[in-house]
Amino acid sequence: MYEAPVSYASSCFSCTKTVYYAGTRDYNPKQMAIREKVFNIIISCFKRHGAETIDTPVFELKETLTGKYGEDSKLIYDLKDQGGELLSLRYDLTVPFARYLAMNKITNIKRYHIAKVYRRDNPAMTRGRYREFYQCDFDIAGQYDAMIPDAECLKIVYEILNELDLGDFHIKVNDRRILDGMFAVCGVPDEKFRTICSTVDKLDKMAWEDVKKEMVNEKGLSEDVANRIGEYVSMQGGQDLAEQLLQDPKLSQNKQACAGLTDMKLLFSYLELFQVTDKVVFDLSLARGLDYYTGVIYEAILSQTIPAPAEQNGADEAAVSVGSVAGGGRYDGLVGMFDPKGRKVPCVGVSIGIERIFSIMEQKTSSEKVRTTETQVLVASAQKNLLEERLKLTSELWNTGIKAEVLYKKNPKLLSQLQHCEETGIPLVAILGEQELKDGVVKLRNVASREEVRLIVSQIVYNLSCILTKHFD
Amino acid sequence: MYEAPVSYASSCFSCTKTVYYAGTRDYNPKQMAIREKVFNIIISCFKRHGAETIDTPVFELKETLTGKYGEDSKLIYDLKDQGGELLSLRYDLTVPFARYLAMNKITNIKRYHIAKVYRRDNPAMTRGRYREFYQCDFDIAGQYDAMIPDAECLKIVYEILNELDLGDFHIKVNDRRILDGMFAVCGVPDEKFRTICSTVDKLDKMAWEDVKKEMVNEKGLSEDVANRIGEYVSMQGGQDLAEQLLQDPKLSQNKQACAGLTDMKLLFSYLELFQVTDKVVFDLSLARGLDYYTGVIYEAILSQTIPAPAEQNGADEAAVSVGSVAGGGRYDGLVGMFDPKGRKVPCVGVSIGIERIFSIMEQKTSSEKVRTTETQVLVASAQKNLLEERLKLTSELWNTGIKAEVLYKKNPKLLSQLQHCEETGIPLVAILGEQELKDGVVKLRNVASREEVRLIVSQIVYNLSCILTKHFD
Repeated sequence: MYEAPVSYASSCFSCTKTVYYAGTRDYNPKQMAIREKVFNIIISCFKRHGAETIDTPVFELKETLTGKYGEDSKLIYDLKDQGGELLSLRYDLTVPFARYLAMNKITNIKRYHIAKVYRRDNPAMTRGRYREFYQCDFDIAGQYDAMIPDAECLKIVYEILNELDLGDFHIKVNDRRILDGMFAVCGVPDEKFRTICSTVDKLDKMAWEDVKKEMVNEKGLSEDVANRIGEYVSMQGGQDLAEQLLQDPKLSQNKQACAGLTDMKLLFSYLELFQVTDKVVFDLSLARGLDYYTGVIYEAILSQTIPAPAEQNGADEAAVSVGSVAGGGRYDGLVGMFDPKGRKVPCVGVSIGIERIFSIMEQKTSSEKVRTTETQVLVASAQKNLLEERLKLTSELWNTGIKAEVLYKKNPKLLSQLQHCEETGIPLVAILGEQELKDGVVKLRNVASREEVRLIVSQIVYNLSCILTKHFD
Repeated sequence: MYEAPVSYASSCFSCTKTVYYAGTRDYNPKQMAIREKVFNIIISCFKRHGAETIDTPVFELKETLTGKYGEDSKLIYDLKDQGGELLSLRYDLTVPFARYLAMNKITNIKRYHIAKVYRRDNPAMTRGRYREFYQCDFDIAGQYDAMIPDAECLKIVYEILNELDLGDFHIKVNDRRILDGMFAVCGVPDEKFRTICSTVDKLDKMAWEDVKKEMVNEKGLSEDVANRIGEYVSMQGGQDLAEQLLQDPKLSQNKQACAGLTDMKLLFSYLELFQVTDKVVFDLSLARGLDYYTGVIYEAILSQTIPAPAEQNGADEAAVSVGSVAGGGRYDGLVGMFDPKGRKVPCVGVSIGIERIFSIMEQKTSSEKVRTTETQVLVASAQKNLLEERLKLTSELWNTGIKAEVLYKKNPKLLSQLQHCEETGIPLVAILGEQELKDGVVKLRNVASREEVRLIVSQIVYNLSCILTKHFD
């Protein structure tokens, strides 16, 4: 006999989860019901904005992923060489999207893609981070007038986070060109832009003093240069800040910074029209890690914290901040990397970090009873020997599209049939009885109110449809 | 600059497909629209029958998959050993389901699972076979009265194939115990049951004479034994055949065969109540390959053939039969293999082979225009300098749930805005004009009929909602 790999099974922060390979998880029916609800909100939003959808394989040629993720490349899952091409599991949906555009010579598309991606990361399951996780991406590819698609991406993040009702949030916005311009005028040598950018990116988790130490001690900036950066990255604002920095004696001399700031001003004017400026902050400390961004970048942060799990070992870990739940930006060079002639397709997009959202939704509903089926009626019997009648009626209900169940027993007790309704939330039960069948009727009971009506057998399907439409839709 | 891996790109049988790694494919927006339609039909059916859904990770511990698939195990994709546990991509959804049940000690569930599975097979893309493909599984786990869940699985296959409208089909049914009993009474040695079963399984692709040759020449059966098998496997029928075989002087002496035949009789009586016997055939030649089946087995076959693709190389391949599009059966021992104490959970299920169905649907719609977005209205302008007004109105429409688009240009031509509607099937266009805005109105045009109405600006959102509900739902 085969032994189950129980040694890997360890329970996660919520008792509804079973993890059997560190960093992945099964979804049980309750979790799936929540997942479906979240996906429906997100997909509705993407469709409301006119997006199509595509799908790509879970693995890509290894070389497609090479050189796209900087230091994070070590987190890519490779497939074993079993003959044939070398393959890797996709790390995100952006690189496959760019590969798809280049390969199919598409220069214009607004698409969403919801699929799992894979990272050999240290999972932090309390924050809803796994090695296998969903991404929900929305991207607009094409040569358009400045900042209109960029503003729509932010509008989408706003709509989704609002509708998911996860509490207060804000969206930080910055621009790669502003960052680069800022580094230049502060005196950072060109070749250190990317590495200093990574250090700035840590400001959401580390104090400025520690970030500065890293810049000076590890990255070799002078104290002066670091201080100048420090002044800029403490700035937050809106359109006014963009205008103010356009007057900044140093920044205004830098071409890159000026282009970024002019676009930022324009972006805010569109965000005003979209009525989302109450949640959007121009924040000079935002510096997303990925190499491929070329223009505006953004990140949405929930204000809410998740209470620390009550672990058996009595860990006194403080409540953890959920942090970033969406991010994205403009990447005008990525598609060109996959085109033999280097033809560029400008792109801007956003990725919703859905696993953290699932974690919050699960906690919100942890004490609630969530229905995991949609069954409308159970076909039951009050006496023995009515299996055939039950099966026949159930079949007729299915044939007219009514969601119906029947217990797989020859002679179930009425009580256990009613219990099944209560446990799974089935609102109606059709009860067959010998005398009733002789009289040509079936009793229909509302499980919650216990009200009963008698329906004529030959009209039951029609009547039931009417009742369901009227009361349970 | 990175060179795209164009060397792998080869066009498949339909020009809408681009295959870049042999055996996988991207789905473009039109294919996704078809896929969504097919999934909706299948998921509705599963929900109508009261199923919940679960999800499992794309990879399992390698040892979970070991010893479950017989000779096909060589087709499993392994992940590279990058430290940590050895992992493999899932080969089907049944083994992960059994692992899930055992690990969570679930003894009762009716669940569906729609997800991709992976096989290092020689892809036959003309028949819709890929190395990455979807399975749609429905399974009922639990100790119930005989053949009721089994009959429901067949009812589900019947409903789905009917609703997908793929032409005529039939469902072959047999039972592992009848096969084993038949082999025993024909004189096949016990240790050859499985290998002879595999040979019988080829009867859908090979003539009896060739199958017989394999039995005699390769598998070492005597001519007599093979002939006796030949008599049985040519039999087809319904409940009557089960009754007839229960009287068969040899088969009736075999305990296994009798149990299988008695259940087959019962199954057909339930199928009668479900009104599906017109498509179900008891066929003694059906012998599904997988090791884990213990009772009833079935397979659904479309009568339709797919016309051979017109390849550039002028291949004269004949029209290929689509063949099996669904299959399944009872596997009462699999869950026990994952339970440390070997506790069994009886299961029966069906898997819909969705990729072949996609192929057919794609061919059916290859000349049709399929909408890939759901946009209801484009917000357009007749003159220049109305970008702000367009963005503002679009935003208001989004806020009320109306699916709206706006072109990402400052000053698009009216003609190109109307063309966008025609190309993508947007039914309505709201046209902003300077004079109209001064008068406080917006023109709403029906793109197909060119009819126009004037709506008052302050009431446009409300009026548009009414029009959409009335005419376009």
